[in-house]
Amino acid sequence: KDDEAAQARRAGQISMQSRLDILLSHPALLSICYFLALTLVVALLLWLPISSRTHGFTSPHIAIFTAISALSTCGIPVVNTAIHWTMFGQAVILVAVQLGGLGVMTFASMISIAASRHLKVTQRILTATELGATKLSEVKSIINVVLVSTFLIEAITFAALFPGLYRASNGRLGRTVWQALFYAVSAYNNTGFTPDATGLLVNSWSVGLPIMLSAFCGTLGFPVILNIFRTARARRSPRHWSLHTKLTLFTTFALCVVAITWFLANEWDNEDLFYGADDSRRFRCALSAAVMPRSAGFDITWVPQVTEQTKVFMSGMMFIGTGSSSTGGGIRVTTFAVLLLICRAAFTNHRDITVFHRRIPRQVRIMAVSVAVTCLTIVYFGAIALIITTHCSFGDAIFEASSAFSLAGYSVGVARTDTPVSMYILAVLMLVGRLGPMTIAYTTSKTKPHSVVRYPEEPIGVG
Amino acid sequence: KDDEAAQARRAGQISMQSRLDILLSHPALLSICYFLALTLVVALLLWLPISSRTHGFTSPHIAIFTAISALSTCGIPVVNTAIHWTMFGQAVILVAVQLGGLGVMTFASMISIAASRHLKVTQRILTATELGATKLSEVKSIINVVLVSTFLIEAITFAALFPGLYRASNGRLGRTVWQALFYAVSAYNNTGFTPDATGLLVNSWSVGLPIMLSAFCGTLGFPVILNIFRTARARRSPRHWSLHTKLTLFTTFALCVVAITWFLANEWDNEDLFYGADDSRRFRCALSAAVMPRSAGFDITWVPQVTEQTKVFMSGMMFIGTGSSSTGGGIRVTTFAVLLLICRAAFTNHRDITVFHRRIPRQVRIMAVSVAVTCLTIVYFGAIALIITTHCSFGDAIFEASSAFSLAGYSVGVARTDTPVSMYILAVLMLVGRLGPMTIAYTTSKTKPHSVVRYPEEPIGVG
Ligand SMILES: [K+]
Ligand SMILES: [K+]
Repeated sequence: KDDEAAQARRAGQISMQSRLDILLSHPALLSICYFLALTLVVALLLWLPISSRTHGFTSPHIAIFTAISALSTCGIPVVNTAIHWTMFGQAVILVAVQLGGLGVMTFASMISIAASRHLKVTQRILTATELGATKLSEVKSIINVVLVSTFLIEAITFAALFPGLYRASNGRLGRTVWQALFYAVSAYNNTGFTPDATGLLVNSWSVGLPIMLSAFCGTLGFPVILNIFRTARARRSPRHWSLHTKLTLFTTFALCVVAITWFLANEWDNEDLFYGADDSRRFRCALSAAVMPRSAGFDITWVPQVTEQTKVFMSGMMFIGTGSSSTGGGIRVTTFAVLLLICRAAFTNHRDITVFHRRIPRQVRIMAVSVAVTCLTIVYFGAIALIITTHCSFGDAIFEASSAFSLAGYSVGVARTDTPVSMYILAVLMLVGRLGPMTIAYTTSKTKPHSVVRYPEEPIGVG
Repeated sequence: KDDEAAQARRAGQISMQSRLDILLSHPALLSICYFLALTLVVALLLWLPISSRTHGFTSPHIAIFTAISALSTCGIPVVNTAIHWTMFGQAVILVAVQLGGLGVMTFASMISIAASRHLKVTQRILTATELGATKLSEVKSIINVVLVSTFLIEAITFAALFPGLYRASNGRLGRTVWQALFYAVSAYNNTGFTPDATGLLVNSWSVGLPIMLSAFCGTLGFPVILNIFRTARARRSPRHWSLHTKLTLFTTFALCVVAITWFLANEWDNEDLFYGADDSRRFRCALSAAVMPRSAGFDITWVPQVTEQTKVFMSGMMFIGTGSSSTGGGIRVTTFAVLLLICRAAFTNHRDITVFHRRIPRQVRIMAVSVAVTCLTIVYFGAIALIITTHCSFGDAIFEASSAFSLAGYSVGVARTDTPVSMYILAVLMLVGRLGPMTIAYTTSKTKPHSVVRYPEEPIGVG
């Protein structure tokens, strides 16, 4: 009898051990587990009466949705942040945003280092992937740079925002400090939650400009910031920037120019948006509409008033998104650039895909194509699911799905608290958008060993 | 004085000659010129009073639109074919459809062969490209097979349609012959024009089934039909089919199964569509909805009644389209298959893109990606242009743009005769859809010689 019990216990231990092995041999699964565990904690805190101004329990759907929205740095609100949540609830959201912006694996690594000054290889690989680092040995030092640069930029944003917000709040110091802190964290992490019931004060340059610049830095992605910083420290010219930095910066600026031009050309005479506004207001709005939609998602008040074509255009910009390993989402500007480069090579009959005197490796091309195709499929079926559940139009559905998946955070009101299913569709889109479709695909697929047989090539007709 | 005149004349001749040289050195440009010349002739004939039942000149916009719609085998009507056009007008449309279906270059080659029993190399290359043939020496014999198979399938369809139409027209022989001919040509060429004011009689199997099967053969594409025919003649098993044939058939059947399932799942309880209908009617409609939307575009009466999600799904199916070198359009099923195969390789970490024990060559992959990206961009901006000109919703705009570009021929009524600009946007989409984005890109771009320098590779972060 005792023997049997011992054996059963041992079998249980082995099965537990093998389950852990599976988890560790599927690093992507570990990422997802971390994320879901954090979601649970944040949702639980938001659900408690202490988080709600009504002093009652918040609906669990709303708590879970807000937790995922904050942790994924998407920032689509289903309740007004300033009106529904207490100071405690807002603080929980803010911490979640910061954790999400740093990246769950980076956060886990920080804890590991703090606890044991040691990082396991799996942990190292995951963090390196999340931060876009190439050398495993660098992970520890890179985490330090991430922390320093994040808090430095947030501190600068805080300081820059202070005077404008102080004036706007009529000299209330406590309120100003809280708002400046909230905006500073929310801006660099591209989340778009606002601590003000009326939304962002875009009419004031002293508040709008620091937020815009901070959000713009966040969209470049950490590898770009690190590369620029290191090149500058070595006193080398921008010519020595990495290909990734050059391509990200070039594509980002090109997209901003296109977006400003589009907005001015299409919305200049929009009476709903610019009733009685002067030219300077129009330019400010265009600038904010060019930088924000790709990921920040602040200033949501004007979105429902833009023309249908601008909504469609914005959906496209949100889908392209921000830089790799940034606080934003989307297919990433480099993916978009690689697709365009492939087209250029095909049109001009070139064998190599080249840019800035460098060749794009085969593996990068395959990854770019599969990321784009997978993301498009996810957004397409996400939009269809929203149509089925809420009977909204395709234009609204694709806008909302792009916004959720690309972590942009704008909303045309498709997700409503009275249809929890639509909230969960958006939540899944945000989750996939934050972790990346590749992470999830790696979790479910088995990596087969390289096959020894190499099949012969055979051309087919396409297009 | 005389000298100067002679010099000027000679200069004029030289410039004329060099212009011809440019035309011939840009074979794609020649394709476009042929197509535009044919459009002009057809539009002119349709414009004349003899083509219109009102005995007056038809609006030139409508004449040009209908000419392009027929020649591109798209078949979107802006006026009711049976009500607006006379017998002569309908005959002009039918000839245009047949020319468009054969392909303008194939047609030009036929004329060349008839006139001089000789084909220039440029002409050979263009025709081979159009027909998806790989050997230039085969062009002449392939043209014969194209002609024979086209007219054979059309004749069979004609014979199969005759009894059902004879019964439907209450025994009027002349009318039956004309309708059967019109349907037979229209079905195999996937055009979707109907000689009947009320549209296609989908309720009758005896009319619906031959049209459906004929349209299905047309969607496979000529290379597939030729390959199956040759393999059968050599008494070899389907295992010896080419990779192109296998991939086209597999993807086409898979898409049909998905479409039938989708339609039944989403429209089964649609009261607008199936008021008081029995199950057999529902299955018939689903079958037609699965085969037709990818290119045939018959039976347009029910389209406005489907749910929003089915419209979105149909837009996607139309965008994927038919087989390469077929009478249909879209990005082609093989392009779609290659994209999915690239995703599979990326997810399972494979180095090669393989299917059916064959490797997809690099050039095919690059072509597939660039075709898909270019087509998506064209449809996206085409839809935006439609929104700007007609103020329609994004759902309707993307449906109409996909339909025009993919030559499917369905319409939700965005193109109206009172806004000529919207008609021309659709006309351009059809033109690009028929000629292929690559043809047009090759016309405008200069093919640079292969560069001797090969740049070093540098990885970047994507996705
Ligand atoms: K955001
Ligand atoms: K068609």
